Amino acid sequence: MTAYFDNSATTKPCKTAIEAVNDALNNCWGNPSSLHQVGLDASNKLKFARKQVSKLLGVNENTFYFTSSGTTANNTAIFGAFEKMKRQGNKIVTTAIEHPSVWEPIKYLESKGVQVIRISPDKSGKINEDEFFSAIDKDTILVSCMAVNNEVGSILPVNSIRAAIKRNGSPAIIHSDCIQALSKIPVTPKTLDADIITVSGHKIHALKGVGGIYIKNKGSVKPYILGGGQEQGLHSGTEAIPAILSFGAAAEEAMKVSENSLYVSGLKKKLVEAISDIPCVTVNSPEDAIPYIVNISILGLPSQPIVNFMDEKGICISAGSACKMGHRSPVLTAMGLSPEIIDSAVRISLSRYNTEEEIDILISAIKEAAEKYGKKR
Amino acid sequence: MTAYFDNSATTKPCKTAIEAVNDALNNCWGNPSSLHQVGLDASNKLKFARKQVSKLLGVNENTFYFTSSGTTANNTAIFGAFEKMKRQGNKIVTTAIEHPSVWEPIKYLESKGVQVIRISPDKSGKINEDEFFSAIDKDTILVSCMAVNNEVGSILPVNSIRAAIKRNGSPAIIHSDCIQALSKIPVTPKTLDADIITVSGHKIHALKGVGGIYIKNKGSVKPYILGGGQEQGLHSGTEAIPAILSFGAAAEEAMKVSENSLYVSGLKKKLVEAISDIPCVTVNSPEDAIPYIVNISILGLPSQPIVNFMDEKGICISAGSACKMGHRSPVLTAMGLSPEIIDSAVRISLSRYNTEEEIDILISAIKEAAEKYGKKR
Repeated sequence: MTAYFDNSATTKPCKTAIEAVNDALNNCWGNPSSLHQVGLDASNKLKFARKQVSKLLGVNENTFYFTSSGTTANNTAIFGAFEKMKRQGNKIVTTAIEHPSVWEPIKYLESKGVQVIRISPDKSGKINEDEFFSAIDKDTILVSCMAVNNEVGSILPVNSIRAAIKRNGSPAIIHSDCIQALSKIPVTPKTLDADIITVSGHKIHALKGVGGIYIKNKGSVKPYILGGGQEQGLHSGTEAIPAILSFGAAAEEAMKVSENSLYVSGLKKKLVEAISDIPCVTVNSPEDAIPYIVNISILGLPSQPIVNFMDEKGICISAGSACKMGHRSPVLTAMGLSPEIIDSAVRISLSRYNTEEEIDILISAIKEAAEKYGKKR
Repeated sequence: MTAYFDNSATTKPCKTAIEAVNDALNNCWGNPSSLHQVGLDASNKLKFARKQVSKLLGVNENTFYFTSSGTTANNTAIFGAFEKMKRQGNKIVTTAIEHPSVWEPIKYLESKGVQVIRISPDKSGKINEDEFFSAIDKDTILVSCMAVNNEVGSILPVNSIRAAIKRNGSPAIIHSDCIQALSKIPVTPKTLDADIITVSGHKIHALKGVGGIYIKNKGSVKPYILGGGQEQGLHSGTEAIPAILSFGAAAEEAMKVSENSLYVSGLKKKLVEAISDIPCVTVNSPEDAIPYIVNISILGLPSQPIVNFMDEKGICISAGSACKMGHRSPVLTAMGLSPEIIDSAVRISLSRYNTEEEIDILISAIKEAAEKYGKKR
């Protein structure tokens, strides 16, 4: 048996997502652009999936576009918004803890002469609002801020950005990478007050190979992937129907955001209470992080050996995010944690499918690792 | 029963592709970047799929990168090669019958000041080699030429480009969009002599949502999708394992290129012989086109009503390509066909899974449509 606690890297597809894929493979494999029955079947299912994901996001389905991944959604958001806004200014304000799929496009623009301000978090992974918001000025055209950090689970102050923009007379539009937030906190344009929201299917128990982007005003984002004009021209390429239908199904399954969060909070509470007595263990996530992500360190034992130790017991956790393996976590570094804590940090990421029994197994294993290999005081 | 003759728009996933997806969903749903068993399982299957597709392409697996679609592969090829080559010249030579996922990126570069030469085909859809090759000069940095046209099935002279480049002292590298060619003619760097080859899964009975790009020298293409550095940094984003495994399985099924081509040639021969007697029917594909694509017109009956007429009989064909629905075919227009022929053109695209019985049904339906609605002489 595997106790899977790496749900921020990817999730196991849920039952209805798998059913949707099988439906797509056997009954609905046409090209939605084809004007015959096989195409029409695919087109209708595509519409239905768009409704399902749009409902979870609380948006009109005409403002939501499927993409091939969270990464292409983020690339489209950053490059596409910049292209449309570049005549109004030359500055981007963002955080120092964004995902590489946001970080790298912004770094590229910086290399082309765009001024970039990256706000570092405090030691708990939270962004100082005063520092963040005072960086937004009349030259700022884009503010990009994730809703939930992928390594420590801290919640970022996206919904206060609009007021700062108005206060400071900035023309900026707001992008929020909600890939880790979707289904875990309420992610809607209303709760976040963002102009562009990007999401990914495989983080919410759908297939890998589908993402999405909500754009309040379509004209504010230039298409980045060019071609046949699918998704209202916003993201070309034949729609990945199997993955898209699975995203729709998974979104519908994920509607009970508060209820699921409450359940996972119970699991997290049990975990944190049990391990906080262990002298060599630190909890690096802030107390008010989402319950789905718990970053801890077992001092004395480097991250990867901890992951390996757990793996031998059938427990899956990760050393930082899966997206930049082999590098010292830029997020924990930006938080200013000590090298000792950073080098032994691991991320435990939960889902609503985890059980109390799995938490018990995890707790025992952490205790065992700490006793055997942890730094003695 | 559906007789599906729209295989150039998309194909039905083959049995082994569906099995590979089910394997991915149930046993291999991890993130290949994760350093635990669940991740390792995914990583191993990813490697295996890469071997399978690389084998079909006849390339070293270290030179083949999965992408999220044929479109992102083509965007990466055009934008990525241009970025790396732009210091050596400012001209792109291509054809007037490329797919939108090649056409649109080149058009974008043209709007930024790049000189673009587009060679039009003759009335049979073939490219005049002299005209094509004489356009390649010392300022030309990229030659992009599809291997097989998607609307009429003509084979383009990709494998003669290298000699022209050398003859004319051009620094150009060669990209060939092989999305319609893969599995239908031999598509290898050896047979085509191209530096960059782009392919797509769903045209060869894999899932929608996966493509690929062969790059002879990785340094000649700048990554276009930026982020976590997957696919050796060439195409970021968590790998779409289900679609990728289906691509591998479908590639293995498609290895018998000549045998399958022979079978489909038999079907095409039967079709063309049966309909060439009908006075109001024209065959618009050149005689030496691949057997998988037969473009015809039923004069007197516009394209879409022909498609609808067939659809009511359970026969799927298309009016031009699925990728630019609603527009008059740019390919047939470039071929200089008469408006009468263009406006009544339909594409019949076959696969190795089509049967003689289906061809009989199609022949009867074409005869019926021609008798009832075709232009009388």
